[in-house]
Amino acid sequence: MQIGKIIGTAVSTKKDEKLEGLRFQIVEYIEPSGESTGNHVIAVDSVGAGVGEVVLVACGSSARLTNTSKDKPVDAIIMAIVDSLEGEGKTYYQSY
Amino acid sequence: MQIGKIIGTAVSTKKDEKLEGLRFQIVEYIEPSGESTGNHVIAVDSVGAGVGEVVLVACGSSARLTNTSKDKPVDAIIMAIVDSLEGEGKTYYQSY
Amino acid sequence: MQIGKIIGTAVSTKKDEKLEGLRFQIVEYIEPSGESTGNHVIAVDSVGAGVGEVVLVACGSSARLTNTSKDKPVDAIIMAIVDSLEGEGKTYYQSY
Amino acid sequence: MQIGKIIGTAVSTKKDEKLEGLRFQIVEYIEPSGESTGNHVIAVDSVGAGVGEVVLVACGSSARLTNTSKDKPVDAIIMAIVDSLEGEGKTYYQSY
Amino acid sequence: MQIGKIIGTAVSTKKDEKLEGLRFQIVEYIEPSGESTGNHVIAVDSVGAGVGEVVLVACGSSARLTNTSKDKPVDAIIMAIVDSLEGEGKTYYQSY
Repeated sequence: MQIGKIIGTAVSTKKDEKLEGLRFQIVEYIEPSGESTGNHVIAVDSVGAGVGEVVLVACGSSARLTNTSKDKPVDAIIMAIVDSLEGEGKTYYQSY
Repeated sequence: MQIGKIIGTAVSTKKDEKLEGLRFQIVEYIEPSGESTGNHVIAVDSVGAGVGEVVLVACGSSARLTNTSKDKPVDAIIMAIVDSLEGEGKTYYQSY
Repeated sequence: MQIGKIIGTAVSTKKDEKLEGLRFQIVEYIEPSGESTGNHVIAVDSVGAGVGEVVLVACGSSARLTNTSKDKPVDAIIMAIVDSLEGEGKTYYQSY
Repeated sequence: MQIGKIIGTAVSTKKDEKLEGLRFQIVEYIEPSGESTGNHVIAVDSVGAGVGEVVLVACGSSARLTNTSKDKPVDAIIMAIVDSLEGEGKTYYQSY
Repeated sequence: MQIGKIIGTAVSTKKDEKLEGLRFQIVEYIEPSGESTGNHVIAVDSVGAGVGEVVLVACGSSARLTNTSKDKPVDAIIMAIVDSLEGEGKTYYQSY
């Protein structure tokens, strides 16, 4: 998985019929330190994550292993909201 | 998924027989800001997207999860046309 | 898919038994403009493409979706020979 | 597989229900020489590896081929702890 | 597939039980010219390749399509030893 921050939403009317009702979030990939990597992905939300939240994104066929995304043409899924990223004797990130 | 802009079409006569009738679009990957990333992909169109449109591209096995691409040797599919890319209190992109 | 130009052939005697008879082409990835990206892939040929030809390469599990590559340990397949790459009012590439 | 060093743990309360009980490790990818590549991945642990250990990470659908990760939306798994990395007449890395 | 040179072996005692008996080779990716790309992969050997040999590596789900790797959590396999890499009127690489 990669760590990312949700920075917005992609809106689409004309899309594959299996994609109706899915929420496409714009995710900016970040380092554990919180710094942006400069790369983005559009990921389907399966956990109710909103703009500003730090999340984990799973890509590839694994993106279809949630109830939300099963058998759908999506290659990236938000499958967890990050509370904290913790190292040995240090905290990289804390959500609140 | 990645965001991209269709900049043309790849024409091929000699190809795997399962690929007959598919439309191969040349997609330039872009940032949410609209800036080109400098990378391209050739993606099969499943939503009737044309040159100039901003689209979402799904890659890997997920590219075979549309009716257009099922069981075919393609690794990238255009599965949505983007209306807008919206952040908190700002619009990255608007199609019209 | 990625666009590439065949620049040679990889010869292998000692290989997985399922790979007997396959042709491994050395493909240099190119931009639609024809410029080399500097990256290469070894792809199995499924369409009779030869050195010098511009082709499309599908990677990952999709590379096993041709009759040539079915159930074989290969992750890249040449599934189309490119006739032309056409933009709006311009031609990026023409094979003849 | 890629070689990495575990540098911490990602904690998540709100996640896909299939992910309950999994341990998400923050892995910094390293070269055989031990030097950091500057890239990270969040990988599920299947072998009891802890912070500071050098491990192998398998990505993609292969990440779901352990008992820990079967049918779950995860795309990276720690499937081995590295004892040593040995070249011809030299040792790149030794764990103790 | 990518071209690589085996530069060593990764030794692991604590690993997923399905991995018992597999040989994990450290492969340095190279260009057809023989120059290193600077990237490495740990790949399971399925053809009896040893240190110093130039090989082809298949990644992703295709890495599980050999008898050695079937249903195992590995994402890279050595499936061929390269005898030569031949271009039009030139030889990039010759193994002996």
